[in-house]
Amino acid sequence: MKFKLEVTDPKSKARAGMLTTAHGEIETPIFMPVGTAGSVKAVHQRELSDDIHAQIILGNTYHLYLRPGLDVLEKAGGLHKFNGWGKPILTDSGGYQVFSLANNRKLTEEGAIFKSHIDGSKHVFSPEGVMDIQRIIGADIIMAFDECPPYPCDYEYARKSMELTHRWLQRCIDRFDSTKGKYGYEQTLFPIVQGSVFKDLRKQSAEFVASCERDGNAIGGLSVGEPAEMMYEMTEMVTDILPKDKPRYLMGVGTPANILEAIALGVDMFDCVMPTRNARNGMLFTSEGIINIRNEKWKEDFSPIDPYINSYVSTFYSKAYLRHLVISKEILAAQIASIHNLSFYLWLVGQAREQIKIGKYADWKNLMVEKVSRRL
Amino acid sequence: MKFKLEVTDPKSKARAGMLTTAHGEIETPIFMPVGTAGSVKAVHQRELSDDIHAQIILGNTYHLYLRPGLDVLEKAGGLHKFNGWGKPILTDSGGYQVFSLANNRKLTEEGAIFKSHIDGSKHVFSPEGVMDIQRIIGADIIMAFDECPPYPCDYEYARKSMELTHRWLQRCIDRFDSTKGKYGYEQTLFPIVQGSVFKDLRKQSAEFVASCERDGNAIGGLSVGEPAEMMYEMTEMVTDILPKDKPRYLMGVGTPANILEAIALGVDMFDCVMPTRNARNGMLFTSEGIINIRNEKWKEDFSPIDPYINSYVSTFYSKAYLRHLVISKEILAAQIASIHNLSFYLWLVGQAREQIKIGKYADWKNLMVEKVSRRL
Repeated sequence: MKFKLEVTDPKSKARAGMLTTAHGEIETPIFMPVGTAGSVKAVHQRELSDDIHAQIILGNTYHLYLRPGLDVLEKAGGLHKFNGWGKPILTDSGGYQVFSLANNRKLTEEGAIFKSHIDGSKHVFSPEGVMDIQRIIGADIIMAFDECPPYPCDYEYARKSMELTHRWLQRCIDRFDSTKGKYGYEQTLFPIVQGSVFKDLRKQSAEFVASCERDGNAIGGLSVGEPAEMMYEMTEMVTDILPKDKPRYLMGVGTPANILEAIALGVDMFDCVMPTRNARNGMLFTSEGIINIRNEKWKEDFSPIDPYINSYVSTFYSKAYLRHLVISKEILAAQIASIHNLSFYLWLVGQAREQIKIGKYADWKNLMVEKVSRRL
Repeated sequence: MKFKLEVTDPKSKARAGMLTTAHGEIETPIFMPVGTAGSVKAVHQRELSDDIHAQIILGNTYHLYLRPGLDVLEKAGGLHKFNGWGKPILTDSGGYQVFSLANNRKLTEEGAIFKSHIDGSKHVFSPEGVMDIQRIIGADIIMAFDECPPYPCDYEYARKSMELTHRWLQRCIDRFDSTKGKYGYEQTLFPIVQGSVFKDLRKQSAEFVASCERDGNAIGGLSVGEPAEMMYEMTEMVTDILPKDKPRYLMGVGTPANILEAIALGVDMFDCVMPTRNARNGMLFTSEGIINIRNEKWKEDFSPIDPYINSYVSTFYSKAYLRHLVISKEILAAQIASIHNLSFYLWLVGQAREQIKIGKYADWKNLMVEKVSRRL
């Protein structure tokens, strides 16, 4: 994997770059739609590429490991072949889901023991095992196995958890570097900075991660309930330490405003379930602000969902029609809202990239954060 | 509305024709996807036209009347404008849904009194009212208000019900003919033959309906639980009486085999929720037979859903991937299966039309009925 840093904004730490993987190029800053079980919910693969203009999607190791399972994925020739998405894929390590979804979970030095939330079957995730699993899934970018501590957590918990994550990272690297991709193309491993909201831990973790000299680096354990200002402070501390010539991925973030702020702090990659999950509840992100489409005020508004977003659903369907579909619990509501919200997120990071390239990101960001955050 | 009878099959009563409406032409025989509340469930309007090649869709008056309601539909300029489907639309009269969905329903000479299944609010559907409602919805083809008797029902019930349907039909015609389309284009009214499974009643009803000399005629009250042979017998009796130069619509039918058999008896138009409803349960209709995609046997079958069907989902996604989505309760499963099944239905009636045009329908139909009915 190669990363080319193209431009840095003069008045912020925002960067525009180009990431090259075995399955194609990714222009940064980028947002990655979440395709939990090998499907971005309610969105066809064709829509992902042609309407949303997604350049990379995310898959969840925990979900894919349980269903369809490694046998099926390996026989299919990996996730790209299985779901027909030929562009880049990133997989998380499954650690986060083990602690948020699985039952009877238990953490040891060795790894995590848990019971499936689907059928109660018992499983073990270790750093080595999770590398092997992600080799079989065949993602272009695979993530180290880490523990994501909850917020708030006390300093001692955060310190011990970070140290465990660092020991696990070394085991991940050892395993990853002694194995090869299963399908003839290269994969790359991103380590993850932890340390909760404690400055010295974040610094220590960022330095350790930077010293591993991988192709790219991630910031985990944020956007888990802490105030936004605290998230930005931790992010900036970390990006100041992580190498400039490698892409930086802020995991699980966030709202449109969060993303714009984090870009200004030097983050290049984002993922979040918000655009799709909120879509299924009738919440739309638009270039003019946030819409709760269930609201009576949209009942007879026959204007398009968002005329500025270049996706067929955003201009083809009206607010009134979408509201009717949501109220009537029609599946098409989730489809339209998901495509629109993802198109908006990809449009937003695309606009950010353009502004960085012309050196005007900082001012544009300040205007835009206000615009995309207001409730219509 | 115009109907041009193009070809009649030499060895059956199958016909190929062309129906011209204000919103475009329809090649018959045709299948009409059901768009209950103004949306064909899980299918985008673009997919309906470009992938499924639907030429006309159906809307349910009962559902549309309750949600979004007539105010919204009228302000939108009718259903075509509201949902963005620019091709022909047919609406049913709502009678069937009043008796299958609504609460506290009561039938009188005047019409039907019922409570909404959504909020319990009280409503009245009369023949005149239902004509006015369908004028507001703005469908190209609107249906007479009828009573659809259950199966089985005794002769006396069937006779009285048919007579009521005939009196209501006269009231529908009087109202329809004394009003105009609201949006500058012409609508047309189809009367409905009833009579349950009693030959003399069916004959009497078909003769009455034929005497009304409308642009097209429908056969109702079948496919409600009676044996298929009885349905075919009633259908043939009726098509022998209905005028040859008008399209014939067999309401609510049916399986692929039912449709092929009814085409051979002279039916031109069909609608049914089966391709979409069964899709949502993982049942696929293919050119090789019927698939229950939940079955273990498809788990590692990476072949396309149906390589003979010209829709992107049918050739792009594999059986194994679709099975995984169904098992994982992913929304995309309903989307893929619905588009596939509807594409198959439209392909099937398209193939039927080609066979009629070359005079080989009867033999092809016998082979095809067997093929599409077998379970894979």
